[in-house]
Amino acid sequence: MTREADWIDFLRRRFPAGAGVHVGIGDDAAVLRASGGRDLVVTTDLLIEGQHFLRRAHPPRAIGWKALARSLSDCAAMGARPRWALVALAFPAATPANWVKEFFEGVGLLARRFGVSLAGGDLAVANQIVADVQVIGEVSRGRAVLRSGARPGDLIFVSGTLGLAGLGLACLRGKITSVEPVVKRALLVEFFPQPRLKLARALRRDVAPTAMIDISDGLSTDLNHICEASGVGARVFQASIPAVAVPSPLARRLRTTGLQLALNAGEDYELLFTIPKVKAKRLPRRLAGVVLAPIGEITRDRRVVLVDAAGRERRLPPRGWDPFRRS
Amino acid sequence: MTREADWIDFLRRRFPAGAGVHVGIGDDAAVLRASGGRDLVVTTDLLIEGQHFLRRAHPPRAIGWKALARSLSDCAAMGARPRWALVALAFPAATPANWVKEFFEGVGLLARRFGVSLAGGDLAVANQIVADVQVIGEVSRGRAVLRSGARPGDLIFVSGTLGLAGLGLACLRGKITSVEPVVKRALLVEFFPQPRLKLARALRRDVAPTAMIDISDGLSTDLNHICEASGVGARVFQASIPAVAVPSPLARRLRTTGLQLALNAGEDYELLFTIPKVKAKRLPRRLAGVVLAPIGEITRDRRVVLVDAAGRERRLPPRGWDPFRRS
Repeated sequence: MTREADWIDFLRRRFPAGAGVHVGIGDDAAVLRASGGRDLVVTTDLLIEGQHFLRRAHPPRAIGWKALARSLSDCAAMGARPRWALVALAFPAATPANWVKEFFEGVGLLARRFGVSLAGGDLAVANQIVADVQVIGEVSRGRAVLRSGARPGDLIFVSGTLGLAGLGLACLRGKITSVEPVVKRALLVEFFPQPRLKLARALRRDVAPTAMIDISDGLSTDLNHICEASGVGARVFQASIPAVAVPSPLARRLRTTGLQLALNAGEDYELLFTIPKVKAKRLPRRLAGVVLAPIGEITRDRRVVLVDAAGRERRLPPRGWDPFRRS
Repeated sequence: MTREADWIDFLRRRFPAGAGVHVGIGDDAAVLRASGGRDLVVTTDLLIEGQHFLRRAHPPRAIGWKALARSLSDCAAMGARPRWALVALAFPAATPANWVKEFFEGVGLLARRFGVSLAGGDLAVANQIVADVQVIGEVSRGRAVLRSGARPGDLIFVSGTLGLAGLGLACLRGKITSVEPVVKRALLVEFFPQPRLKLARALRRDVAPTAMIDISDGLSTDLNHICEASGVGARVFQASIPAVAVPSPLARRLRTTGLQLALNAGEDYELLFTIPKVKAKRLPRRLAGVVLAPIGEITRDRRVVLVDAAGRERRLPPRGWDPFRRS
């Protein structure tokens, strides 16, 4: 397709206006009708070739899925229900039309799963593929779950298995095409991460987390985010972290461990949240189909520490993903 | 600054949470409190180095300004009041911190002018500078002005002077540093275009345009957008188009004319709108400080034609900005 108008026609047919979309794709802006009396939750996330995905290794459908998943996961972390998405996509002029179509297939697959409508976007030419997805969601007034509400004595939980996406990316980078089940599972999470929207809403309903964040940068960084925003510290028990089990030969080849991946790789989009200790017994081991693990507690003193099996403590600095770190 | 957290601290200090921002920069998402009973108007616009601006020629403050201006102009074209912005910015790791600060100064200058709050965003590393700005605005329920409402017999108007930004860009590309007043004015519009928000609201109040669009791609393309969306055609009188007057020596050097720039260059962010003929006399020559010019009328047959001084008609195809055209 050689005209922007052709792409807009394609997208308009592919994504008919959904609920609450008064004017969808094709005007200067979208017109949305929000529910009355709720707060809006809005987020925007860049996904960039070479930084967040590898053009040669990631299928375009996975890239579209992931571009939207990042923003949906932010909505989950706020306890909000995502409703509308805007997708801005820039790509080199020589990109095959099918690549772009597959990208939007990926967006559409995930959007349909959670009842999110593509309301608009923008297309442009760039030297590399850059996607920027905005999601607008809704949450009951004043009920968004922030990073800043963790209190000393709260217990810290995480959902799912941490480090899977990091393992998947390491295998892609290392061109490892193992058929080991853990590698398959890791690639699935790296390609099609599941935003924990149902879990987040169940948590908000059942235990009202005091603070919540999605693990996009790695447990070490995202836990530090909660502690900084809440003005508290944390003690995390290494043995309690549900880190991916990486078979030794693979770990040696990749020069990493499941714990390192869990702490610092990110992109799992699991939830990290805190709840008052008295509510802990209300929390089942599995909620909305996802296993929940207590990994430690919030402390008054502001240090974030990891406690090993022998009871030794060490600082747990934010060593996860940071686009601006010079490593 | 070598950590994302430093940038977020900088932005949080620089852009304190404004009206309706319940949770601003720094959490997983922003939480906004919209006015009850209004529609939301949302838009996203990419601004890309080499495509929309030249790193060597455009000051970073102008790039920040322009990145926001594009989305504010979309709000104007809908007759909406912009309230919040999210700014996603990707830049090469070697970009000086001052460049980024100046970019956000430009965003802030324009945001303050129109009472828009920076509510959030994202930062990332890329090979070239890519900005994507989302704006969320509000408009009275069902009152957004669409592209699709033009009716046969309506008169077509444009605001301001067309082709100035195109002249400015041509001068930058040609490294022309003339001190002619028109070049100065052209560079000012290219660097700091004025979204016509006040004009749009006055128009909606005084004459209720049947259709409206901002001229971002050039009059030829944007008029065709209105005609396609409305299922109508248009007759435009060449002599009535308020095209920039380009002195002959400059026009020869740039191999263009004021008319060509007005029709096909875009980026002026003036408004193109239609009103029923009976309302035309209500429309002053100047509104909200901007001159308004009648340039033609909407026709039943779907052709878009330009009528020259001798009365000859020719088709006016969309020859304005299209990122995917292979020229």
